[in-house]
Parts: sequence; C-alpha cells; structure tokens
Amino acid sequence: MQSQEVRLKRRPVGMPDADDFEVVTVDLPDPEAGEIQVRNLCMSVDPYMRGRMVDRKSYVPPFQVGEALTGGAIGRIVKSAHPEYPEGEIVESHLGWREGFTVAAGQTRRIGELSAPPSAYLGVLGMPGMTAYVGLFGAASLKDKETVFVSGAAGAVGSIAGQIARIRGCRVVGSAGSADKVAWLTGELGFDHAFDYHDGRLLDHLREGAPDGLDVYFDNVGGDHLEAALFHMRPFGRIALCGAISQYNATEPVPGPSNLVMAIGLGLTLRGFIVSHFDHMADDFRRDMTAWVNAGEISYRETVYDGIDKAADAFIGLFTGANVGKMIVRLAD
Amino acid sequence: MQSQEVRLKRRPVGMPDADDFEVVTVDLPDPEAGEIQVRNLCMSVDPYMRGRMVDRKSYVPPFQVGEALTGGAIGRIVKSAHPEYPEGEIVESHLGWREGFTVAAGQTRRIGELSAPPSAYLGVLGMPGMTAYVGLFGAASLKDKETVFVSGAAGAVGSIAGQIARIRGCRVVGSAGSADKVAWLTGELGFDHAFDYHDGRLLDHLREGAPDGLDVYFDNVGGDHLEAALFHMRPFGRIALCGAISQYNATEPVPGPSNLVMAIGLGLTLRGFIVSHFDHMADDFRRDMTAWVNAGEISYRETVYDGIDKAADAFIGLFTGANVGKMIVRLAD
Repeated sequence: MQSQEVRLKRRPVGMPDADDFEVVTVDLPDPEAGEIQVRNLCMSVDPYMRGRMVDRKSYVPPFQVGEALTGGAIGRIVKSAHPEYPEGEIVESHLGWREGFTVAAGQTRRIGELSAPPSAYLGVLGMPGMTAYVGLFGAASLKDKETVFVSGAAGAVGSIAGQIARIRGCRVVGSAGSADKVAWLTGELGFDHAFDYHDGRLLDHLREGAPDGLDVYFDNVGGDHLEAALFHMRPFGRIALCGAISQYNATEPVPGPSNLVMAIGLGLTLRGFIVSHFDHMADDFRRDMTAWVNAGEISYRETVYDGIDKAADAFIGLFTGANVGKMIVRLAD
Repeated sequence: MQSQEVRLKRRPVGMPDADDFEVVTVDLPDPEAGEIQVRNLCMSVDPYMRGRMVDRKSYVPPFQVGEALTGGAIGRIVKSAHPEYPEGEIVESHLGWREGFTVAAGQTRRIGELSAPPSAYLGVLGMPGMTAYVGLFGAASLKDKETVFVSGAAGAVGSIAGQIARIRGCRVVGSAGSADKVAWLTGELGFDHAFDYHDGRLLDHLREGAPDGLDVYFDNVGGDHLEAALFHMRPFGRIALCGAISQYNATEPVPGPSNLVMAIGLGLTLRGFIVSHFDHMADDFRRDMTAWVNAGEISYRETVYDGIDKAADAFIGLFTGANVGKMIVRLAD
C-alpha cells in the first residue's frame, strides 16, 4: 500500500503558507508480527500544532523539517499481524498527517463500538471535547449556575465548552468571528449571548451579555480577549488558559494583559492547562460526553476538507476563521 | 487631646510627592459610652495604599481628597468609656495616619499580652507577615522542599515569605534593590541565593539561583520580574500574585508578561490574593508566626521614621527602596 503524507518543508514565519508544507508518497511495509497497517479515514488539524512548527523548547518537541507532521487521526485496520487488533476495526492514533501507516499495534488505541461517526472522535468525543471538559471542571473548577465567557466559541473546543456550561445551568456568553457563527451559538447551541468580536468593544459586549460579571473565562484567544475578560471578572473568578490563537502567528513578542494586576484585589486564579494534564478525567469525560451527544444535549459541527492535499489549507483555515466547529480532513470512507 | 493627622491633599500622579499630603491638627473628643480614646504608638505605610490614592473602583474604596488616610496602627488606650477596653491596653486599628483618635471600642482589636514590641504587630506579626503566610500556603499551595523565588525579598512581606519557605525546607531565591539588602537576605535571613535586580538579567540570576527551575514564585513586583519568573517555572508551578510595586506609580497602562502563554503548556497557576481573602487562616498564622519569632527562626527588621510629619516621606520611601523590612512611622513611646 502507498500512502501520501504531509511534511513540514520549512518553518512558517507568521501566518503559515501552503508552500511551508509538501505532500510526499511513501510505500508502507506490510505489518510484521505485532504490527498493524491502518488506512486513515480522517485526520485532525488543530491550532496547537502551530506551536510545534517553531523550533523551541516546549511541552512537546517541535516538528522537524523534512518529516511528516503528527496529529490525531481515526483509521481502519486494513492488515493485521496482531491477534487483538482485527482487520476492519477502528483505531485512534497520533501519528498524523498521512493516509496510512504500519506500526506496532499498541501505538494506536481501539475505539471499540462507535456511537458516532468516526470524525466525532477527533472532535466532540476526542481531544477537543475533552479539552473543553477538563478546562471547565479541572482548570476552572466550574460550579453550576455560574456566568461563563468562552472565546473562540464557534471553534472545536469553544463550541463544546459553552454547551457543557449551559448543561450545568450556567449563563454562557461566547465570542466568534462572524455573524453566522454568532447565530449558531445563540441558536442551535443555546448560548445566552454571543457577539462578533470584530464589531465594537469587547468589554461592552461582555457587559451586555453578563451584566453581573464573569465567574469563569475559558480563554482560547488570549490578547485583547483576555484583557477584556480580566476587566469584567467577579471576585474569586477563574480563568482557564487553554489557547491564545490570536498570537500563535505573531513574529514579535505580544504584550500580556495590562490589567493582570486586577487579579490581586479580586482574588482571581488563572490556570493554564493542556488536555493531557487531566488524563485522570478521561473516563469521566467519555461517559458524560457520550451520554450528552447521544441525548442530543450537545450539538457539534464539522468543517470538512477532502483529501490529504488539502491538509495544509485546512490547517491555515484555523487561523482565518474558515472552520465552524471541528476542522476535519477526510481521507477515506 | 489634640492629634495631628495626614490628609490626602491631591491625588498623586506618578511617583507621590510630599506636597500631595498635608498634616492637620484636630481636637479629639472625649470618649462617650462605649468609646475609647487611643494614642497611636506607631503606624504603617504600605505599598497597597498607593492604589487607594487613585480614584477608581477597586477592592477597597479610594481615599478621598481632603480626608485623613487610613492604614494599620498600634496604639495605647488613654481614655476609656468601655469596660472591656481598659486604659493602658494596646490595640490595633485600621484608622490610620494619625496620632490618636476617639472611636467605638469595637473598631479596634485588643492584642492582649504582647510577645514582641508593638511595631512588630504592624509587620511580622501583623498584616505583612500574614500576607506572606497566606500567600505561600493559601495562594501558592507551598509544599516542603520546593524551590521558591520571592521578589522584593527585603521588603516587609518578602523578607517573611522567604524565611517561611526556608523553614519548610525550600530552596529560596530572592531579589532586592541593593547589595546591602542582598547581604541581609543571604546572611541573617538564610536565603540560598539573592541578587540585586539592578545588575544583569533577571533570568540569568534565576538560572543561577535555581538551576532546576521554580516551583513557586511569590510576586511582589510584577513587570519584568513576573515575566522572568514565567520563563523559569517548572511544570505545574504556582505564582502567588501579591503585589506589583514596579507599576503602582505608572501613569500609562503597563503591558503584562509577553510569555503568559507559557502557563498553558506548563500547567501553571497564577493566583491573585490579598490578605483578607484568607481571614480563615488568621489563627494558624498567629500561632505559627509567634512561635517562629519567639524561637528566633524568623528575623525581622524595621525602617523607622519618627513623627507624623515624616509619614509622607516614609510612604514615598517604599517606592525608592528606602526601607529594609517593614517601614514604620513611630508616633509615641
């Protein structure tokens, strides 16, 4: 079997460009004892990958130029030399931007019986959904009926975070980048208030949507969003620092919020996290989220790009607002 | 009895000036039933008071122009019309920048038998000492044998925070503003490493003093200190945001740390606090700190200005580094 894979051709400077990536065809070896060969059905592009394209020390090693990019994918076993991984079974992997691969079976995770389409395991039932869940309950210690602001609320993580908070009886305010996204938030997703961050002052929107202030801010954006939220936090509020997509493509250091000092008098807590810090909550997440999705309490959307040669465009689209909900690259049926 | 008091003459812009204050003599009424008349022995000037001189919404109302400034003081009851507050007893009050006052007795707190000179109850055994204690154990969840960085370490709060951490077996690094202060930290106070922040790069000093990174940063300074500490935090480190003296006199918004995004991957927690958020720890604080001071495990120094007419100078001195340890204004013996 042959597989096309996407390699990092050069490190992006500022906004990534399609020419920073290249698609290469490779031959996959047949699986030896203990190995499986997998054909990916879909793969994920996520904002955090931008950080891995920079050559610096971070919580995960940087991607290497000339090598295939890695990330979440869902695939089907097409050849197996491992008795517990039968052909036809669906597996999750973090091997990434490629149509297929041959690896030791243990490098993948069997999903078991699917309760949703495969791509959902890259979104609402996968890493982004769990990020939303642990960000609220772990990092932000969410309590029922609080007031919650979610930035980037039409994204893969934000759209789920807002709905979880709604399920817990919270007042939920969200920011997004277009009128269509805002309509989705206040319509299907049941946000109490949403606004297009391009229009008007962020703080005015927050005051309108949450007149009594914010107990929790789920930050996917950083920058001016974080500063505006700080101005509007209630005493002892919590801020979950999940992402800062507004500055991932910055080529110069971006100043932090000028009003961080407000955290002192208000007794605010800002807590940064990535999903793996809360691996101990994975079982709770899968149980709750599967139930919510099956009951129709949580909706999700995907923006789908077809084919491995569209992977770079899909990734770049994360920074131009091209996605509603989870950005997915579809590789096979 | 007459009392001189210090009033806010006008709101300071930038660094406070002695002309922003004025000393006025007032007559004190004799105490009526339930009241006491107190002659202050000493009063406190503290950096947080700078914030109250600005006319803005904050966790405490702003000082009013033309009115006496308030703050901690220790005094002796000279006339009493309350049976439980006998003449001669020592009381703590938060009525402030004045030589004496007549108030309802309940507006003061009886200290009981003193285990240290009265002024210690404005420092190590008072609000600054408790701020250090609750900042470490409450806001920063300090554990034994961690590595701790304290900025403004020769100040009233920092000098106590560093010693508490030392008692708990921590490696302690401190920054201060002069070679003499640095010598005091590494000498009498037992810091493992200290440096003058005027010399060299902060991050280089932190790497030298804490080669394996920081578990806890006790921030009294903000600005470049906070940014440097963020660069050097270990995974799951905690930052207690206690003060930001570097920017209290700023006349323009001061950008926050450009590397706050590092909190995400490292799972850092930044928690702002003021001492009253942890009032429930007051008994623990008094018990532990009294024991430590009596056992000689915690040392403290005071910088003493004599007379109410020196109160403004003492306050301004907080921002020019004039104090080693607690800044005290002595009013009577």
